[in-house]
Amino acid sequence: MGISEVAAIEQLNAEFYGAFEDGDLDRMAQVWADDKDADGGVVCVHPGGPMIRGRGAVLRSWALIMANTSYIQFVLTDVLTRISGDIAVLTCAENIITASDEDGAGFAAGGHVATTNVFIRTNDGWRMWLHHGSPVMLRGDVE
Amino acid sequence: MGISEVAAIEQLNAEFYGAFEDGDLDRMAQVWADDKDADGGVVCVHPGGPMIRGRGAVLRSWALIMANTSYIQFVLTDVLTRISGDIAVLTCAENIITASDEDGAGFAAGGHVATTNVFIRTNDGWRMWLHHGSPVMLRGDVE
Repeated sequence: MGISEVAAIEQLNAEFYGAFEDGDLDRMAQVWADDKDADGGVVCVHPGGPMIRGRGAVLRSWALIMANTSYIQFVLTDVLTRISGDIAVLTCAENIITASDEDGAGFAAGGHVATTNVFIRTNDGWRMWLHHGSPVMLRGDVE
Repeated sequence: MGISEVAAIEQLNAEFYGAFEDGDLDRMAQVWADDKDADGGVVCVHPGGPMIRGRGAVLRSWALIMANTSYIQFVLTDVLTRISGDIAVLTCAENIITASDEDGAGFAAGGHVATTNVFIRTNDGWRMWLHHGSPVMLRGDVE
């Protein structure tokens, strides 16, 4: 594992959040792997949501979230990347500034999200295979 | 990747939930990797909680959760395992029956949790490197 490969993963990770911030579904679609590259299809868990499997359903979820997000910005902290074989696992904390439409639905998050992002190596380079974000609601807790 | 390796991962995954159901911290400790085997240390996100890094903090969190859980049982559905190199990623839905002490704190979950479990191959065999469980709160949502 070279440092350059970690840098490539973190650049793709930044592109994932950049696509979301810009509300650019085409860029988001480029980030995600095809289902054929991913056993069982790509996987996405939005904060508070169920596990969504398959590229079609995942991209539809992003279209809906982007349509209901007028402004969102991410500052990532505590980023750690581990690569083995054709899988890279990146964990981080998302610190979010957001504004949603009044009628916005389907996205329950704000403030702080704990995230696991998994990338796979494809013929077209690294692509996102799994995004799992979960709301951080507890304080003064188990740590 | 042999089918037997997937079976080994799913057996270890079952042991993880079995240790939790039995409130057996020693068995839970056996499931988790040492920090030396895991760049940046092992990682655990309990539903609604922050990202906990490091074996010491993770096992303390389990001790606290077990102390505050009088009964819990898991039925796993939608289990999918992907292995590459020395990393295995298992995603599943946890369907939970639970009872907590009245004063129980630090564990906000029940009903349904979306989960990503990542295992790494160590000199002692496969061990858990990351557990990320998130509460499923939204219905009629992005799917």
